[in-house]
Amino acid sequence: MSFNTFGRVFRFTTWGESHGPALGAVVDGCPPGIALTEADIQPWLDRRRPGQSRFTTQRQEPDQVRILSGVFEGRTTGTPISLMIENVDQRSKDYSAIAQAYRPGHADYAYDAKYGIRDYRGGGRSSARETAARVAAGAVARAAIPQVRVRAWVEAIGGDAIDDAAFDDAQIDANPFFCPDAGAAARWEAAMDSARKAGSSLGAVIACEATGVPAGWGAPLYAKLDSELAAACMSINAVKGVEIGDGFAAAALSGEQNADPMRPGADGVPEFLANHAGGIAGGIATGQPIRVRVAFKPTSSILTPVPSITRDGTATEVMTKGRHDPCVGIRGVPVVEAMVALVLADQALLHRAQCVGHD
Amino acid sequence: MSFNTFGRVFRFTTWGESHGPALGAVVDGCPPGIALTEADIQPWLDRRRPGQSRFTTQRQEPDQVRILSGVFEGRTTGTPISLMIENVDQRSKDYSAIAQAYRPGHADYAYDAKYGIRDYRGGGRSSARETAARVAAGAVARAAIPQVRVRAWVEAIGGDAIDDAAFDDAQIDANPFFCPDAGAAARWEAAMDSARKAGSSLGAVIACEATGVPAGWGAPLYAKLDSELAAACMSINAVKGVEIGDGFAAAALSGEQNADPMRPGADGVPEFLANHAGGIAGGIATGQPIRVRVAFKPTSSILTPVPSITRDGTATEVMTKGRHDPCVGIRGVPVVEAMVALVLADQALLHRAQCVGHD
Amino acid sequence: MSFNTFGRVFRFTTWGESHGPALGAVVDGCPPGIALTEADIQPWLDRRRPGQSRFTTQRQEPDQVRILSGVFEGRTTGTPISLMIENVDQRSKDYSAIAQAYRPGHADYAYDAKYGIRDYRGGGRSSARETAARVAAGAVARAAIPQVRVRAWVEAIGGDAIDDAAFDDAQIDANPFFCPDAGAAARWEAAMDSARKAGSSLGAVIACEATGVPAGWGAPLYAKLDSELAAACMSINAVKGVEIGDGFAAAALSGEQNADPMRPGADGVPEFLANHAGGIAGGIATGQPIRVRVAFKPTSSILTPVPSITRDGTATEVMTKGRHDPCVGIRGVPVVEAMVALVLADQALLHRAQCVGHD
Amino acid sequence: MSFNTFGRVFRFTTWGESHGPALGAVVDGCPPGIALTEADIQPWLDRRRPGQSRFTTQRQEPDQVRILSGVFEGRTTGTPISLMIENVDQRSKDYSAIAQAYRPGHADYAYDAKYGIRDYRGGGRSSARETAARVAAGAVARAAIPQVRVRAWVEAIGGDAIDDAAFDDAQIDANPFFCPDAGAAARWEAAMDSARKAGSSLGAVIACEATGVPAGWGAPLYAKLDSELAAACMSINAVKGVEIGDGFAAAALSGEQNADPMRPGADGVPEFLANHAGGIAGGIATGQPIRVRVAFKPTSSILTPVPSITRDGTATEVMTKGRHDPCVGIRGVPVVEAMVALVLADQALLHRAQCVGHD
Repeated sequence: MSFNTFGRVFRFTTWGESHGPALGAVVDGCPPGIALTEADIQPWLDRRRPGQSRFTTQRQEPDQVRILSGVFEGRTTGTPISLMIENVDQRSKDYSAIAQAYRPGHADYAYDAKYGIRDYRGGGRSSARETAARVAAGAVARAAIPQVRVRAWVEAIGGDAIDDAAFDDAQIDANPFFCPDAGAAARWEAAMDSARKAGSSLGAVIACEATGVPAGWGAPLYAKLDSELAAACMSINAVKGVEIGDGFAAAALSGEQNADPMRPGADGVPEFLANHAGGIAGGIATGQPIRVRVAFKPTSSILTPVPSITRDGTATEVMTKGRHDPCVGIRGVPVVEAMVALVLADQALLHRAQCVGHD
Repeated sequence: MSFNTFGRVFRFTTWGESHGPALGAVVDGCPPGIALTEADIQPWLDRRRPGQSRFTTQRQEPDQVRILSGVFEGRTTGTPISLMIENVDQRSKDYSAIAQAYRPGHADYAYDAKYGIRDYRGGGRSSARETAARVAAGAVARAAIPQVRVRAWVEAIGGDAIDDAAFDDAQIDANPFFCPDAGAAARWEAAMDSARKAGSSLGAVIACEATGVPAGWGAPLYAKLDSELAAACMSINAVKGVEIGDGFAAAALSGEQNADPMRPGADGVPEFLANHAGGIAGGIATGQPIRVRVAFKPTSSILTPVPSITRDGTATEVMTKGRHDPCVGIRGVPVVEAMVALVLADQALLHRAQCVGHD
Repeated sequence: MSFNTFGRVFRFTTWGESHGPALGAVVDGCPPGIALTEADIQPWLDRRRPGQSRFTTQRQEPDQVRILSGVFEGRTTGTPISLMIENVDQRSKDYSAIAQAYRPGHADYAYDAKYGIRDYRGGGRSSARETAARVAAGAVARAAIPQVRVRAWVEAIGGDAIDDAAFDDAQIDANPFFCPDAGAAARWEAAMDSARKAGSSLGAVIACEATGVPAGWGAPLYAKLDSELAAACMSINAVKGVEIGDGFAAAALSGEQNADPMRPGADGVPEFLANHAGGIAGGIATGQPIRVRVAFKPTSSILTPVPSITRDGTATEVMTKGRHDPCVGIRGVPVVEAMVALVLADQALLHRAQCVGHD
Repeated sequence: MSFNTFGRVFRFTTWGESHGPALGAVVDGCPPGIALTEADIQPWLDRRRPGQSRFTTQRQEPDQVRILSGVFEGRTTGTPISLMIENVDQRSKDYSAIAQAYRPGHADYAYDAKYGIRDYRGGGRSSARETAARVAAGAVARAAIPQVRVRAWVEAIGGDAIDDAAFDDAQIDANPFFCPDAGAAARWEAAMDSARKAGSSLGAVIACEATGVPAGWGAPLYAKLDSELAAACMSINAVKGVEIGDGFAAAALSGEQNADPMRPGADGVPEFLANHAGGIAGGIATGQPIRVRVAFKPTSSILTPVPSITRDGTATEVMTKGRHDPCVGIRGVPVVEAMVALVLADQALLHRAQCVGHD
């Protein structure tokens, strides 16, 4: 089934294919009266925009967003906000081979198995280009919860991780890898150049932190904050794993090691002495920073030939030319941020619906 | 917000607290005409039932399920299936201390921050006891997709993992750890005894495999099969991480290493030469086994005192007596299986809705 | 498809068949901290309870509700509230004939066409007995919006309407017809006796008014307050029409006749000089009383033989014995009230989610 | 709350304001492989298009639809279908007075009460212009269920109804009133001219019939076919009442009069001897024609001054100039058809999900 809407009360719906005329998002449920213009959205899109360094796809897309509805005289009206981004630099002929052979690791075969028809140009709907719509929607979410700061970075590329001691927030936007560790950025540059020249690709791990989330946002059980974050992040192209707080490392700890002790803090707000939990207990925010880690597989498009089959079932080999990100995880940074912001905006409204001011 | 329903067309809603009179699930959207009696559900509940070895909580609950609606003369009718399990062995006095002090690592503080009121007896709604309702619902899901086999096991406890070469499916139900490696089971027995005696606890990793899922189930983007599985598994108490296929390990691979080559197979179905993807590409099943890994943190209830605060904000120390699982991950095995089965049943129906037989 | 959940954030799910062991509702999303015991729900069930006069079915059901979860020490906790009502006075043998022949006007044939299987005892899931679960859920909704008063009555039976000039609220609970006009009640008594003795049945119109709904509840377009009310009321067994405000009569008016002029009122709240709109404009409450009218068809179970067919397709005649309401609309009064209250509670929470206090 | 999505698996989301740059719909869940081009949608939009006779608003909008996604080489791909219609003939200055004074009968006051901000130009989001997006989405729904024919007409204007005996399907598209009775059309022409010249307006009743709906589509209780139709129709601007089958007239009948007798028909399909039920029993289609009636109030925009208030609460009088439909119900015909088609497409998919081929 095709479900292209995410969220419960702050919802967004995306549409569009890689090589169609445009793509977009409809954001529904946004509170009224929020200052919002295209200038509030464009910088986030610019962060994700392709073609900005030799480490991302060379497709040149201006990714100019237009607000088509839901905003009046610079403020949201509470009605649906339609955001559109035109596709400019399609080169569909690059992809004509895909029409007949399934690219391993891509969604080609699965889409055909599901739908029996597929817009194969540039991956069609399964292209990471769809994430531009998410980033635009995420900018609206940020505006809806200004008290929250959502910040992501690349933590590892190809298994080479940053040194936590060298973490410098100012570095994140100072290199083409969203890397907070200048030393790691230098190493990654070499590794990426090497991979790019070899026609290979690399995986990456993204870390994301949200601060300013008050204790109480979230839900028990089936719309748990962590469950929603997991769904949101796992819905991003190429993602294969999601962790909250210590994640899989917690599975190797004892109860004593994993405890997050508390003590009385200022203003009656408890102070936590550790954050193994990543800011969420029982599905509900504790007031600590929300911490999420996301694993991106290496880009499936590589120049090394890989055995595959054609649509009619005969053996072939596929090597994927065209313009691709050698490490799709890098441009995942603004996308992870957008998805986390969208989940938090939704949970903020849900919390208010049930739990605030009913007396 | 409280959301206690999961699924899109094959849906279930759970209710109940640890020390209330009963708990249950309402399964809605199940196809009609499926053979179903309490005897089809009970064995799965029995697998999860507490008190069966010294390695799980000593609370004695028969966990007898009753079908209250939706089944007529041994077959589902298409109407909602109400399942109820009575609580028998509550000992609420064990928990009176929880009323006043927040147990670190538990949902106590977060629930109070959210709702301002909390059924503290045995963790109330946040107790793992709720998972009995999931297991009952999961048994209905299994009956709805008989072509699929969902099988989980414990892969590691406290960081000590099984030897894949020693994997023996027959072992899984032959030891109290759902451990497929007899050697690891012996080691875990010692480690668990040690932890139990020390009043400590251990984390665990569960692996789950679903076979028989046809290529095509799933969805692009926001109801992706992997996204739904991530949400389902992350909604289970104590879970902190979810991986599909190679998960985080894929982030350290190159594109060549991560490729899943294909070749023509029997009956026109492609044969895959690897399964790094865990059976899902672009959110859609490829026909390979679906592979999910889930990280459980160590049980937060330990006998070591941990600094905390009381409801009125004064410093205290909490050591949690009462009856607890020293490794909550173990009994997570039937719960993970249930959640995976529930997601697959839902996706099976969704796939049929949109993609089968419309010509 | 079977959808047994209604509502968006204040949601309820019902389950149960006429002759199963029990029926119930799970109310999810109710705000925490609301005083609620079984004694708050029971009076509404008692109003709907069968067997209280010779004008309703003689089935004797105590309809005692039990709260199984979601309430702690007399207050809601924000977790799902499970309500259960046991069936006591099933007489399934009365219905054995239904197993083979389709009762005209009932859901028998349609259910078989849809599901291929059917719990025919007492109408199974399609029995009006399910409405007991709605009334119980509606009592929770009332508790969630104490500022709102929802009040329904019977406006006409068999085409004989009350005299608006004789409207007396105190009369509504003073006769077995929920009739606000004592003169009409006397006429209906005669008509009902006549119909009952003839084995016939009568239709009815219910009117419902909700006061205390603040301007602003509701939504433009697809969750419009009027649209939700229409869905809610049309979901009740035997309902064939719904009107808001003047309804079909408005279609015969000119714009001048239908206008609801406004003038400045006390405390800055506008005063309306008419209420043709029934308190809703553009899908949103105006602050005036919400007015809904609902048409119930005559009970389909009659003693006059009606041509029909058997399950295997042969001609037959059906006359329906058993215990039935000769005018199913009468007991529709508490059901309409419940559905209106449930819609309003949901809209109250939705309004708060999006529109209150985001600055 | 703003909910701008309708449907459960065949869903659509609309966006756009009367005087914004464009409006549109995103249709999600449409089955793949369906032939669809703009030429399949445009004729339905042309039927609804304003400015085609002196009896509708003189706003000149070409209403050219563009398909921006979800269709590849003339066939649907199963991914979201984005439809956009540009606004061309806005004259916002006509509406500047609305910014300060609330037009009685319109949503102006309610929107301000809800959102505190409002795009007042042409009614903004509450304008009937939004229905263009519905009609476009409805054309996609029609393509998804080609076995179904949905046909609506005007049954009465200003209380003057057609003569059923004069019903002629060919007349419906032969006059500017979608009137199947040539005699009534002539009378309405005079009445409409009179109302238009007086600056007045008239209400209307629309009837709609869907044939080819197989027995079994629909659902018991909360997604009942009749309940969904009621929600769909009541969500249309200016609608105040919805009836299924005999509707309110059924409330005046006896059980004998209201019975729909059945007898064995050809091919094992029962033949019904009447259709008081309007083709729906217990929420499920019986295989008879689905019959819906919808009441439209008179257009609220009239030239007669009506007492009202300004945004700051002072008394005023409002007479609404600008370009309006003197009988908004007339252009409701294609809108009602669209909504009915959209509900049926959704129910078709839902039925398939749960009830077809699970054995």
